[in-house]
Amino acid sequence: MVYLDANATTAVDPRVVDKMLPLFTETYGNPSSKHGFGEAAGAALRRAREQVRALLGAEQAAEIVFNSGGTEGANAAIMSALEASPRRREIIISAVEHPAVLALCAWLEKNKGIRIHVIPVDREGWLDLAAYKAALSERVAVVSIMWANNETGVIFPVPELAEQAKEFGALFHTDAVQAVGKLPIDLKATEIDMLSLSGHKFHAPKGVGALYLRSSVRFKPQLKGGHQERGRRPGTENMPGIVGLGAAAELAAAHMDDENVRVRALRDRLEQGILAEVGQCVAVGAGAERLPNTSTIAFSFIEGESIVLLLDRAGIAVSMGSACSVGSFEPSHVLTAMHVAKEAVRGAVRFSLSRDTTEADIDRAIAAVPPIVAKLRAISPFGSQEGAPQALDQAHV
Amino acid sequence: MVYLDANATTAVDPRVVDKMLPLFTETYGNPSSKHGFGEAAGAALRRAREQVRALLGAEQAAEIVFNSGGTEGANAAIMSALEASPRRREIIISAVEHPAVLALCAWLEKNKGIRIHVIPVDREGWLDLAAYKAALSERVAVVSIMWANNETGVIFPVPELAEQAKEFGALFHTDAVQAVGKLPIDLKATEIDMLSLSGHKFHAPKGVGALYLRSSVRFKPQLKGGHQERGRRPGTENMPGIVGLGAAAELAAAHMDDENVRVRALRDRLEQGILAEVGQCVAVGAGAERLPNTSTIAFSFIEGESIVLLLDRAGIAVSMGSACSVGSFEPSHVLTAMHVAKEAVRGAVRFSLSRDTTEADIDRAIAAVPPIVAKLRAISPFGSQEGAPQALDQAHV
Repeated sequence: MVYLDANATTAVDPRVVDKMLPLFTETYGNPSSKHGFGEAAGAALRRAREQVRALLGAEQAAEIVFNSGGTEGANAAIMSALEASPRRREIIISAVEHPAVLALCAWLEKNKGIRIHVIPVDREGWLDLAAYKAALSERVAVVSIMWANNETGVIFPVPELAEQAKEFGALFHTDAVQAVGKLPIDLKATEIDMLSLSGHKFHAPKGVGALYLRSSVRFKPQLKGGHQERGRRPGTENMPGIVGLGAAAELAAAHMDDENVRVRALRDRLEQGILAEVGQCVAVGAGAERLPNTSTIAFSFIEGESIVLLLDRAGIAVSMGSACSVGSFEPSHVLTAMHVAKEAVRGAVRFSLSRDTTEADIDRAIAAVPPIVAKLRAISPFGSQEGAPQALDQAHV
Repeated sequence: MVYLDANATTAVDPRVVDKMLPLFTETYGNPSSKHGFGEAAGAALRRAREQVRALLGAEQAAEIVFNSGGTEGANAAIMSALEASPRRREIIISAVEHPAVLALCAWLEKNKGIRIHVIPVDREGWLDLAAYKAALSERVAVVSIMWANNETGVIFPVPELAEQAKEFGALFHTDAVQAVGKLPIDLKATEIDMLSLSGHKFHAPKGVGALYLRSSVRFKPQLKGGHQERGRRPGTENMPGIVGLGAAAELAAAHMDDENVRVRALRDRLEQGILAEVGQCVAVGAGAERLPNTSTIAFSFIEGESIVLLLDRAGIAVSMGSACSVGSFEPSHVLTAMHVAKEAVRGAVRFSLSRDTTEADIDRAIAAVPPIVAKLRAISPFGSQEGAPQALDQAHV
C-alpha cells in the first residue's frame, strides 16, 4: 500500500514508539506521585517539554502545555482569549481555517454574539492582507489564523500577521497543526502568543498535542481540575503520548531541512507528472508558498471521492480535502474560498507526503492517476471536453 | 520495587500494549479517511467502543464517547448539563469528590453564580442520604457524585442516588474513574445519565478515557470542531489509546470477579497486618463498603509524606491521598470531610493494589511499615503516647 495522506495522519516513527514503550509497563508512574515511579515520570515529562520547546523555538519550556491535540488547543486558546478580555467581542479568522476554529467561531457568533471577521483568500490561497488590516481593531480579542493550510499546504505569513495584531493589543493564536515539524519555527523571534499543534501530523501518536502559551499571556483554562501543567491543563498527563511527542519533535528538528528537500522533490515530481499526463486539472495553490509535502490537484468534471476510491483499490491512499470534514458532503470550504472553478472543486484530491514516502510510492501514483481520471471522465455525467456526457446510471464504478 | 499506588495509576497490561502496537506503525490510518487505512482504523474504533459498552453494561455502543480521560469527562458532563437546562442553576456534589469536579464547581459558584450543594459524609465515609434528599429539587441541573472514592475506596450507592435525582428531572453524572474495572457495572439497569472513566486506572494507557452518555441525554459538547464521535468530541481519535482502552475493558470484564477475590484478600491481609503491628492508627472507611483494592491507614502523630518517602526508600511506592491533590500542602479534603481525627489526617497513607500486586509485595509492605512508623514517631515533634515529643530540629529523616 502507498500512503499519500500524511496531512490526515502519519505513521508513528518506530524510533518514537521505542521511546514510548517503557512508559506503558516500566516507568508507568503518575508524575504527581511522590515516589520513584512518579519521579521517573516527572523526569520524562520535563525532557519531552524541552524537546517540544526546542522544535518551536520557544523561550521557556514552561510555555509548552501538553494536551490531547489541535482541536483542544485551538478551542482553549480562543475561549481563553475571550474570557481574559471580556470587553473585546470580535475575532478574526481566515476563510480556510480548520473545523476546530470554524465550528467554534460559528458557535460563538450564534450563541455568544461574538463578531467573527472572516478574511478571504485569493485564487492561489494568499490571504487578503488589506482585509486583515481593516478588520484589526481594539475590539478584537484574538486573531486565529492557521500557519499552513491542511488541504492545500498554502503558508500564511503568520509572524507578520501577529505583529500587526499586537499593535491593537489583540492576542494572536495560530493553528500550526500542519506546519509544526514541516516548517522551521522560531517562536521567540515572533509576536505569536499562542500556537496549537498535534503530534500525529509529524510521526508522534494520535491523542497528544500541545498548546504554546507565551509567558506573558493571561491564560484562562477551560478544563478545571488538578494542578497538572501548572494548572493550565488538569488531568493525569498522557505520559506515553507526551514522551512520543517529545521524541517526534526531536526527530523533526534534527532532520527537517534534509527531509524537506527530499519530500519537496518527490512532491514536485508527483505534481508535474500528473499535470503532464492529465488535462483539465490544476494544482491548487501552487502559485503560493506551500508546505513541501502537499499537493492538491483539482480534476474538472469528476468527483474527488470517486478518484479516492479507485486509487484506494489500486493500493494508493489519498484524500479529498480534509479528513476532518468528511461526512459533510459539502464541497471543500477551502477550495470554494479560493474560487477554484466549480466544475473542479468537487474533483479535488490531496496528495500529502511524509518522511515515509519513497520514490517508488511516487512512481506508482504517477502511473495510477491518469487512467483512473480518464476512466471516470469517460463515464462522467457532468461532461468534459474530452468525452461526451454519459447517463447518470452508468456512473457506478 | 513494590507498587502499591494503583489508584494513582496502573501499569498498562502487556496484553493491552500488544493490541495497541499495530495502531502506531501499521493500521495508523485516520478513521475519518475514506481509504483502506481509514477503514481499518474505523473497524478498530467500533470494536473498542463495543468493548467499553460491554464493561459498562450500556445499552448501545453509541452511548460511549471517547475522550482524554476523567477530568475532561466530568467537566463535559457538568457543563453540558448546565447548558442544556439553563433555568436550573444548582448542582449537587459530595464533599469527597475528585478535584475535577470540586474545582469546576468552585469555579461555577464563583464565576457563574451556580449554587453548589455539598453533601457531607460521616466518619466511615457514608454519604448523608438525608442531606442528599433535602438538596434535590427541580432547580438542580445535575448531580455529580463519584461511584468510589479515590482516597478511601468507599463506594456510594450511585444507582439509588440516580433514581432519586430522576424524580426531580435532574441529570445524574458519576465520576466512576475508580470504580470502572473494579466493580461490576450494569448501566442499562440504572438511571445514571452520564459516567466518566479513565483508562489508566485499570491497565489501559494514560491519556484516554470515555464519557458514557445515555441516549436520552441532550448533550452540549464543550469542544467544537469536526464530526468525530458523532459531533460529541471533535478531534482526531486517539486510536492507540482507544484500542488500549477497549482491550483493558475486555480484560477487566473477563477477570474482575476472580481478581477482586484475590485482591481483596491481599488488601485485607495488608491492612490487618499493619493494624496488628502498629498502634494508634485506623483504617479509614473500613466500616463502609469499599473497593477491594484500597486501604487508607491514618497513623496518628506523624506525617504521611514522611511515611511515603521512607517507604519509597525501602522500595515500596504508596501515596498520601490523591496524586491529583499533591502540591496543595493541604490535608486531605476527603479525610477532613470524614472527621478523621486531626492528629491522624496528616498521617494518612493510601495503599492501592491491582492485578499486578503479588503476595510477596504484601509481605514486604507488612514488614516495612511498622519500623518506619516507629522511627518517625520517635522523632515526631507532635508527640505520641508511645514516646516523648522530640525537638523539631531532629526531624530530619
